[in-house]
Amino acid sequence: MNICVLGTGVVGNTIGAKLVDLGHSVMMGSRTSNNEKATNFARNAGSRASHGTFAEAAAFGEIIFNCTKGDVTIDVLKSAGAENLRGKILLDLTNPLDFSKGFPPVLSICNDDSLGELIQRTFPDVYVVKTLNTMNCMLMVNPGSIRDKHAVFVCGNDSGSKGKVADLLRHWFGWREIIDLGDITCARGTEMVLPLWIRLYGKIQHPNFNFHVVM
Amino acid sequence: MNICVLGTGVVGNTIGAKLVDLGHSVMMGSRTSNNEKATNFARNAGSRASHGTFAEAAAFGEIIFNCTKGDVTIDVLKSAGAENLRGKILLDLTNPLDFSKGFPPVLSICNDDSLGELIQRTFPDVYVVKTLNTMNCMLMVNPGSIRDKHAVFVCGNDSGSKGKVADLLRHWFGWREIIDLGDITCARGTEMVLPLWIRLYGKIQHPNFNFHVVM
Repeated sequence: MNICVLGTGVVGNTIGAKLVDLGHSVMMGSRTSNNEKATNFARNAGSRASHGTFAEAAAFGEIIFNCTKGDVTIDVLKSAGAENLRGKILLDLTNPLDFSKGFPPVLSICNDDSLGELIQRTFPDVYVVKTLNTMNCMLMVNPGSIRDKHAVFVCGNDSGSKGKVADLLRHWFGWREIIDLGDITCARGTEMVLPLWIRLYGKIQHPNFNFHVVM
Repeated sequence: MNICVLGTGVVGNTIGAKLVDLGHSVMMGSRTSNNEKATNFARNAGSRASHGTFAEAAAFGEIIFNCTKGDVTIDVLKSAGAENLRGKILLDLTNPLDFSKGFPPVLSICNDDSLGELIQRTFPDVYVVKTLNTMNCMLMVNPGSIRDKHAVFVCGNDSGSKGKVADLLRHWFGWREIIDLGDITCARGTEMVLPLWIRLYGKIQHPNFNFHVVM
């Protein structure tokens, strides 16, 4: 499959490299066509890796992984262009973390709204599926690195898109505990987990942990 | 031990009844000395159960369980009286849930503050330990009703108080996975789990579930 990865940070690189390993063609989008990190990705991740502007990558991808930082997400998606995103599934991995007042960060949007909802409102013709935002990126693509079962949440307004994303999480990355919370307003819940996640990270001292829902 | 339970709702009744069963003397505090629910508790929970005003109950208790609703917590604690709370451990089980705009509720305080912190700021001479607020009350006192391990979080500014609360959770209620997140500002993290908890409740259709932290 032709896949677009938006974002050149560690999340975008981890997701992109895994998808190339799986045999997909991945274009990493960045602000400029000569972005150093995106160029490095295309050089190092294998022959099916390429890079381009946000718009070029979005046009290329049959499916979009949004791995941008929360504070630039809307701008990036506007650069990518609504016409290049229309009708496609966008996996939204972002969190609205605001480090401007120091550590720990606060959320720039929460409680009665979420970044997932803001994306869906801004791009109503995109099938936004919020997922994978409650864990470290190494765990996103390798849940088996923790032996016990643990959860990935999905939410979004379109059941068909969520089903496709769940299949993808299961078959591409190996997820076993996939919990569909409901519509995109459930992104409030998963984004608001971050303050606890960050405290647990401080406690555990490494990011390879997650939540298992037991009952 | 003489224990004060503030709050006459299902949380206060569940906690109070369990503590009486364990052999403790429990006074349930309420706004008026003839409160029907508190009177019923004193009548039904056994000979070591009693009731009184918030101030009477706070004066009685060597330790305080704050089981009030988040929107009245500060008022209740003021009624209980700083002089009756001073130097005591207060287990804060509350969440700042605001149902005034319908369902799902929002949090009346979050992100850069929390109800746990507000209580600690308002009553600086109380040892506030935020705990048990991330689950249903039946599970609080009977974690063994779920066979797999699952977590209860504690946070607060005084290590000695947190250690005593952890002992209490372990020996009175049977908790095995007790995670000390840090100081009282960590209450932001545990209170902000509620939006996810509420969505999971809608999904799972019963409240007897919890999170296990795996790594």
